[in-house]
Amino acid sequence: MARTLITGGLVITAAEEVPADVLVEDGRIAALALPGSRHWNADRVFDASGKYVVPGGVDAHTHMEMPFGGTRASDTFTTGTRAAAWGGTTTIVDFAVQSRGSSLRAGLDDWHAKADGNCAIDYAFHMIVSDVNEAVLREMPGLVGEGVTSFKLFMAYPGVFYSDDGQILRAMQQAAGTGALTMVHAENGPAIDVLVEQALARGETDPRYHGEVRRALLEAEATHRAIQLARVAGAPLYVVHVSAREALAELAAARDLGLPVFGETCPQYLFLSTDNLAEPGFEGAKYVCSTPLRPRDHQDALWRGLRTDDLQVVSTDHCPFCFEGQKELGRGDFSKIPNGLPGVEHRMDLLHQAVVEGRISRRRWIELACAAPARMFGLHPRKGTIAPGADADLVIYDPHAVQTLSAATHHMNVDYSAYEGRTVTGRVETVLSRGEVVLDRGDYLGRPGHGTFLPRSTCQYL
Amino acid sequence: MARTLITGGLVITAAEEVPADVLVEDGRIAALALPGSRHWNADRVFDASGKYVVPGGVDAHTHMEMPFGGTRASDTFTTGTRAAAWGGTTTIVDFAVQSRGSSLRAGLDDWHAKADGNCAIDYAFHMIVSDVNEAVLREMPGLVGEGVTSFKLFMAYPGVFYSDDGQILRAMQQAAGTGALTMVHAENGPAIDVLVEQALARGETDPRYHGEVRRALLEAEATHRAIQLARVAGAPLYVVHVSAREALAELAAARDLGLPVFGETCPQYLFLSTDNLAEPGFEGAKYVCSTPLRPRDHQDALWRGLRTDDLQVVSTDHCPFCFEGQKELGRGDFSKIPNGLPGVEHRMDLLHQAVVEGRISRRRWIELACAAPARMFGLHPRKGTIAPGADADLVIYDPHAVQTLSAATHHMNVDYSAYEGRTVTGRVETVLSRGEVVLDRGDYLGRPGHGTFLPRSTCQYL
Amino acid sequence: MARTLITGGLVITAAEEVPADVLVEDGRIAALALPGSRHWNADRVFDASGKYVVPGGVDAHTHMEMPFGGTRASDTFTTGTRAAAWGGTTTIVDFAVQSRGSSLRAGLDDWHAKADGNCAIDYAFHMIVSDVNEAVLREMPGLVGEGVTSFKLFMAYPGVFYSDDGQILRAMQQAAGTGALTMVHAENGPAIDVLVEQALARGETDPRYHGEVRRALLEAEATHRAIQLARVAGAPLYVVHVSAREALAELAAARDLGLPVFGETCPQYLFLSTDNLAEPGFEGAKYVCSTPLRPRDHQDALWRGLRTDDLQVVSTDHCPFCFEGQKELGRGDFSKIPNGLPGVEHRMDLLHQAVVEGRISRRRWIELACAAPARMFGLHPRKGTIAPGADADLVIYDPHAVQTLSAATHHMNVDYSAYEGRTVTGRVETVLSRGEVVLDRGDYLGRPGHGTFLPRSTCQYL
Amino acid sequence: MARTLITGGLVITAAEEVPADVLVEDGRIAALALPGSRHWNADRVFDASGKYVVPGGVDAHTHMEMPFGGTRASDTFTTGTRAAAWGGTTTIVDFAVQSRGSSLRAGLDDWHAKADGNCAIDYAFHMIVSDVNEAVLREMPGLVGEGVTSFKLFMAYPGVFYSDDGQILRAMQQAAGTGALTMVHAENGPAIDVLVEQALARGETDPRYHGEVRRALLEAEATHRAIQLARVAGAPLYVVHVSAREALAELAAARDLGLPVFGETCPQYLFLSTDNLAEPGFEGAKYVCSTPLRPRDHQDALWRGLRTDDLQVVSTDHCPFCFEGQKELGRGDFSKIPNGLPGVEHRMDLLHQAVVEGRISRRRWIELACAAPARMFGLHPRKGTIAPGADADLVIYDPHAVQTLSAATHHMNVDYSAYEGRTVTGRVETVLSRGEVVLDRGDYLGRPGHGTFLPRSTCQYL
Repeated sequence: MARTLITGGLVITAAEEVPADVLVEDGRIAALALPGSRHWNADRVFDASGKYVVPGGVDAHTHMEMPFGGTRASDTFTTGTRAAAWGGTTTIVDFAVQSRGSSLRAGLDDWHAKADGNCAIDYAFHMIVSDVNEAVLREMPGLVGEGVTSFKLFMAYPGVFYSDDGQILRAMQQAAGTGALTMVHAENGPAIDVLVEQALARGETDPRYHGEVRRALLEAEATHRAIQLARVAGAPLYVVHVSAREALAELAAARDLGLPVFGETCPQYLFLSTDNLAEPGFEGAKYVCSTPLRPRDHQDALWRGLRTDDLQVVSTDHCPFCFEGQKELGRGDFSKIPNGLPGVEHRMDLLHQAVVEGRISRRRWIELACAAPARMFGLHPRKGTIAPGADADLVIYDPHAVQTLSAATHHMNVDYSAYEGRTVTGRVETVLSRGEVVLDRGDYLGRPGHGTFLPRSTCQYL
Repeated sequence: MARTLITGGLVITAAEEVPADVLVEDGRIAALALPGSRHWNADRVFDASGKYVVPGGVDAHTHMEMPFGGTRASDTFTTGTRAAAWGGTTTIVDFAVQSRGSSLRAGLDDWHAKADGNCAIDYAFHMIVSDVNEAVLREMPGLVGEGVTSFKLFMAYPGVFYSDDGQILRAMQQAAGTGALTMVHAENGPAIDVLVEQALARGETDPRYHGEVRRALLEAEATHRAIQLARVAGAPLYVVHVSAREALAELAAARDLGLPVFGETCPQYLFLSTDNLAEPGFEGAKYVCSTPLRPRDHQDALWRGLRTDDLQVVSTDHCPFCFEGQKELGRGDFSKIPNGLPGVEHRMDLLHQAVVEGRISRRRWIELACAAPARMFGLHPRKGTIAPGADADLVIYDPHAVQTLSAATHHMNVDYSAYEGRTVTGRVETVLSRGEVVLDRGDYLGRPGHGTFLPRSTCQYL
Repeated sequence: MARTLITGGLVITAAEEVPADVLVEDGRIAALALPGSRHWNADRVFDASGKYVVPGGVDAHTHMEMPFGGTRASDTFTTGTRAAAWGGTTTIVDFAVQSRGSSLRAGLDDWHAKADGNCAIDYAFHMIVSDVNEAVLREMPGLVGEGVTSFKLFMAYPGVFYSDDGQILRAMQQAAGTGALTMVHAENGPAIDVLVEQALARGETDPRYHGEVRRALLEAEATHRAIQLARVAGAPLYVVHVSAREALAELAAARDLGLPVFGETCPQYLFLSTDNLAEPGFEGAKYVCSTPLRPRDHQDALWRGLRTDDLQVVSTDHCPFCFEGQKELGRGDFSKIPNGLPGVEHRMDLLHQAVVEGRISRRRWIELACAAPARMFGLHPRKGTIAPGADADLVIYDPHAVQTLSAATHHMNVDYSAYEGRTVTGRVETVLSRGEVVLDRGDYLGRPGHGTFLPRSTCQYL
Repeated sequence: MARTLITGGLVITAAEEVPADVLVEDGRIAALALPGSRHWNADRVFDASGKYVVPGGVDAHTHMEMPFGGTRASDTFTTGTRAAAWGGTTTIVDFAVQSRGSSLRAGLDDWHAKADGNCAIDYAFHMIVSDVNEAVLREMPGLVGEGVTSFKLFMAYPGVFYSDDGQILRAMQQAAGTGALTMVHAENGPAIDVLVEQALARGETDPRYHGEVRRALLEAEATHRAIQLARVAGAPLYVVHVSAREALAELAAARDLGLPVFGETCPQYLFLSTDNLAEPGFEGAKYVCSTPLRPRDHQDALWRGLRTDDLQVVSTDHCPFCFEGQKELGRGDFSKIPNGLPGVEHRMDLLHQAVVEGRISRRRWIELACAAPARMFGLHPRKGTIAPGADADLVIYDPHAVQTLSAATHHMNVDYSAYEGRTVTGRVETVLSRGEVVLDRGDYLGRPGHGTFLPRSTCQYL
């Protein structure tokens, strides 16, 4: 395979910022050296002078082709992974879904079928468990053996994905017994459903009511409950898409006790707010996701949590639905709006914008977006860093380029952008996936099927 | 009606300790005066020199004739209220029970039928709501109008009394709308049931496992959850039988925020522990109740909570089952042991023992046992204090007498004592209920039917 | 002595609200009775129908004739206690001051000399310790024996009243050993003095800078430190004039631990704010006191602390300085403004206004203003309540009268009112001190010398 | 300069664990490569197969030749840096001391004179400020310009190093203004001195009383106070030698708020306890240091703090005094025992032992001992990591070797070991300092004067 050399860039990982040349052989990082100190031959040389050389992004939370509310997420693995690559993300961990009444195996097979041969970048799977019962519990160790080492439970969505506390406890016990990580969607679904029904009965049907009924206190409550159940189970816990300051406080308190509790947030909670949900007309529907966007003053708390490491991962929860024909299903009834936002393409750029604005350091940018998700989900050091032996998933990043985010220019298969018109500083210039050039200065060179399934080891923070 | 004078005692209320003569007319306190300063005529004079004169106790948590696990509590209203009187308690608030599928009205009527004409002392009712639905919610204001101003929901006992979080939220909203107080049994039932099943599967069938599976963390979790649901509902909350230090911490945190959250504990949690549950043979069954007894080191936290007013009420949760024939239903399977302890007779004495031991002051004794429950449940100032106009429910208490608690001498209809052989200092000498002498120096003078139903106003702490 | 009867009022104490007739004999409460039920003869009868009958107020923090910054507080014991009586306060606890280099005895004698024969109402003393040394420590038990059972230490005012942490620790140890209560002024004086100097150097000389340099964090820090020193000393602690939300949080945390830690706040912190300090011109000087007034949003926290009992006492810290000639000493240098506000006359009314506004209950009003200070400082049940045997310090209070506070009408010897023009609902109608009528419907009937020194027992919360 | 190659080891940094060859040129890391993948010529090759290759340790807290209590620490820069090298530490940051009444400059010059030409490894300086005044404050920016970018203040030792809170606040302000980091010794010295005096007066003179009088609460109090002063100053804070659980809790709370507050602990607090202070005879004197050793149950809290990153650095506070002639100065009066323990040689090994025991990960070992202190004190990436361009301060570490710590074999100039007889797994095999071999398989090859002064940039966590 081709030998590739990237010269003169500033190599940034979660831990270091050093000027270095990077040599790629056989799809892996072969060596790092003082700039210009070695005289390596290479088939292809990229001059990264004045640029950053960073690990390809790891997006640990995507929902390609996810069925929800009678429709399905508009990005396929083909379109979604291509968009990810455009944004400098070279690994996704998508959620395979168990259908109620069916087996984990069937759900996982289904997801393999969707992804196999279609992905532009490497991918792995978490497993959503919709139906905790004896048979399902018995399936779990097998999946772990196949590299599906994390299971997601829902405390929300009664009647769909919801598990009760007894089911969650049992799943946590079983997951912990196999070394797997339990993920939870932490919102008190039964209570929220009461508030939804009451709001609709009062004629409060606009998208902004989605944000009002899904109370921050009910996210915090479920987060607290998940933590306590995990303590009882002796299990580690990963809380997805934390959006409320009060929920973050529960995580921080647990971590102060030394508990193996982790949290992720997403760019939408860091950059968007209930102001967007309240945009006039039905525009707010574009921003309907769960957990919901929160008032702007929650953003500072989330940024602080990212700095204090009470939140460890920023993923996208990418789950796009077109405004036309999909989001519109909820006109006149916010509870019918499919929940989800497009985002897989913009995560690296939005977090770099936070570097520009002084909210996080460059190293923390890479840790949140690359190294920590890789470690959290058993992909390190193959993914998420730049070191001899790691996969050559590399991004040459221009920290000075300016771009404007827009549905007109993005590559996700969705008819709107949640960040329409927002200008950010920094842009992906070149992307390598296992040494192959997927993107270079605006030329997309990737192909479906390059991406392969990654069996994962268990969480490396435990 | 007779005019009664009690002279020379130390009158102790929640607020004062003053030597005073007490004049009773028409069943009410007519006057208090400096000892010997008035020359009142009276039909009957009690010399309380060297004794305390305290309000009759108010036990806000009893379960007479309560059906549970295929049997029923062994004290009827007849036997239970007589035992209460022996112990210086002159008011009970018992729990009327809604049967699943039936109405609140039917449950309340049933309880009225059980109590009417049988009680030695005055009584009132809370209402247990087993089945939150639209019809039941509509019944609630009517009951408040009849003086049943508190509703109890269970977060434990799935399939029996359990309500899910949506139901609890709706009941809280409805209760708050009528001014009623929501009470909860705070344990995570679905999670506990998993642990019960697993323990039994491991052959852990002895009574002590009852205490192990009902984890303190799961009481604390449910307590936290109830508080958050109450915040969402805008409702006040009263948590019954708090036993775990961690649950108390949740109450304390909520109260620091100024939330209208209240808590009760019971003598069994203050004086007994898992050591009792672990007594040899099947003896531990005598101590099976829920929430369960906790390790001894929780006791200090509860006493501190009583001093800091993070716990406001001490009631008994009196729910006796005979060892023979009832507790024995759970031989070989702790989950079949009827949950409950006898206690209505000993509350005043055990709390006085805490005065003797320096844990609480005399005034706090009366506040916890008389004044606070009366205020909490809308009976003040008629009950719980000694002031002009109050019901003449009075106890002359000998603080120096020594007695030994025992099934051989107690008056509850149950074949064992949870405090067998325990010696305490202090004893009830004389009891008046609305001016009538019920007990005097060991002579029981009460009668079924003297006690009348007390319609209650709403919580006086709000 | 005259026999007095007060009929038909609603008798309110910290614990009860009952319609009752009150009989006074020999300066004490002789009896309470159902209205109209007794046919008592009396020399004088007050008809309190439609009025409240409450205990006379106990103001536990006054500084009559206090020397400060080269001047002295403008109220003498003569004028100050008269003003107190006008406002329904019948007991003050003033601070005797040890001068540096002198003895406690000398300071106490000095204060006795100032007060003796001049007071309209009863009075007691705390002792300010300015100079902790071996000789002074040895004096402390003697003062306790004379009924001066509380000692105040300053963490502020280096060079004047300031004690370092070693001195505070020793004084706390000594006080605890005698049963006395240690009071602290909790502000980090050395740090504040740096900020004062820096502010003045920047030309920030207006009164409002007084509030800015005396940072809330530095009150909270000192409060925390005092608590820890008290723990080390094994001593109880009473923190005077708490004004910062953050300081209150420290008290609340300590009390949750069950520590014997108490706090007082004052009406100025509840009703005034930095908005007043920032009034145009030199007007802000009227509001200069230490701890300083805080931004308005601290008020809610203080009210909550009063409801949750994390603050137990409301006193005035009455320390008036005339605007002309006294406050004016600080024109051009806020640090020269004498620290202190007039307030002894308005405490009962301002707190009743809080009852009217729904912030506290009527009973809590009386507890904060009468019962708790009496208990805290060893005066209960002689003062602070209405019960047989208590001193007949009684106020007939008209809850419906409306009055406007103003320097034009107040009785304190000071040329401005901190509440000028503020309208409140409620007014003192009649005041009895040990059975003697001091004030009746606008007629002042009191006289210097009626008030006697009250030797106090030790804190009754311990 | 020589070209050196280290092959076949597992390269461990704070962030990565990768098998890699390491090429050293001109005293710096030139390249890292997949093992065996490059064919580099080298003058010297070390085969690290089966070994770890880690960065040289950075000990951020040493006191060579430190004057204390009339004597001075027994290690000179010559002997102390040699011992450090034996233990795998290749950088120390020592504390230059300002004498009272003298200038910072004089103190720094003095320290340069002691170290210059004598050190076996590189060194840098913090500056102890004993005397905060205007002149000293004006000197601070100059020192920062010379690479002395951290200033230490003492809240303990009144009369020696102690600064009052006003002085600390001003020094913090000044330090923050220059970008420097303020370090504090956080113990309430004035309070402790009272307890010392009282203990001695009671005849409690043995070494163990040193641990009793220096109460954990007084460390926690000072830590809290330092944090609040830093908030007021707008300054970052680094708390040295945290030993008490309660002090750690203060740091954790501050960090949850996102404050720039940091903490270090030392091996003695992790491995030793008051049990050692209580060893029979005068043996306990060997363990006298301040902050003192704590009861064993504090150790778990400290380990947890190291895992949760509430503590970021482990340094030694190396300050050795011989038992004979030095520690013995305190026979009969524990307050005369020179405060300090030897430790610079054993830090890397003791922390590796914690890896062996499962308390921390290998990467965390390197972070705590190398990377974090380098970043904290402005030495990264030159020190503390292994990356192209970094100084070739490298340690080949044998994780399987077993050694027994003892004064008989250690290289520190002190006549006892605090860890006498303790067996640990892991040992330094080879040490390079800027590419020069200082130690190899038991042969010491270093020399005084190899080590050079490191001007430091400012804290890299800000």
